[in-house]
Amino acid sequence: MGIEIERKFLVQGEAWRHGEGRYLCQAYLNRDPARTVRVRIDGEQAFLTIKGRSVGATRSEFEYAIPVADAQALLALADGPAVEKRRHLVPMGELVWEIDEFLGANAPLVVAEIELPREDQPFERPAWVGEEVTQDPRYFNSALAARPFSSW
Amino acid sequence: MGIEIERKFLVQGEAWRHGEGRYLCQAYLNRDPARTVRVRIDGEQAFLTIKGRSVGATRSEFEYAIPVADAQALLALADGPAVEKRRHLVPMGELVWEIDEFLGANAPLVVAEIELPREDQPFERPAWVGEEVTQDPRYFNSALAARPFSSW
Repeated sequence: MGIEIERKFLVQGEAWRHGEGRYLCQAYLNRDPARTVRVRIDGEQAFLTIKGRSVGATRSEFEYAIPVADAQALLALADGPAVEKRRHLVPMGELVWEIDEFLGANAPLVVAEIELPREDQPFERPAWVGEEVTQDPRYFNSALAARPFSSW
Repeated sequence: MGIEIERKFLVQGEAWRHGEGRYLCQAYLNRDPARTVRVRIDGEQAFLTIKGRSVGATRSEFEYAIPVADAQALLALADGPAVEKRRHLVPMGELVWEIDEFLGANAPLVVAEIELPREDQPFERPAWVGEEVTQDPRYFNSALAARPFSSW
């Protein structure tokens, strides 16, 4: 088990973009924010990830590597369609911005997440970092599976 | 991924009983029969198990060993209280009867399950094997978590 402290922002402009990023495909075996169960295929790897309810920017997180073939079969069991995105990494000192460029029904949404060692950790905000949406449940990936950005 | 072909029966009498069996504690991160997600602690081991919807006596099943400490934390995230039972194994030729003696809110329910290599596999029914409940959703362990036997 780990604790995930993560803040999420909308992204403006294209100044963050370098390279193609990598393709992620994920879907949910439970979209309840009290116990989300996510299946993700990330290139040649796949993971089953369980997260508890968020308290502020903090959530408990449990992640297990699983065979990609299992993940493909689990995507078919999932609740709602898969969320597809390209993930871009932008290092900033000891931290890394993860920029998710959503595809399909969630295009053209782009969000940036930063994982922090503690909730009060200060961090630099590049000019392309827009409004914070950490607490906005519409931007939960589990919510985007059921209610994609293009339908808002 | 595996395919589970399992039939379930009520148990009558005590002639099946030999020894104490082993203690299992399990709870659900999703009780939806289309995608149950179960956390189980079985002695020194723990497992995360996902099952798809049953078709007849057959279900797809994905099982992953996880650390017991993770399982303990995941039980706390679960939807509904844990189901506790003692499991007794009764071999019968090449097959094994798994007899679950429920504890707590599900006592004094006792059910016997047999896993079959194929749906039409013939098998012997000892005298303690009662009514078949394979298709009865009240006896799903995921349902017993939410609506325990003692409340029927």
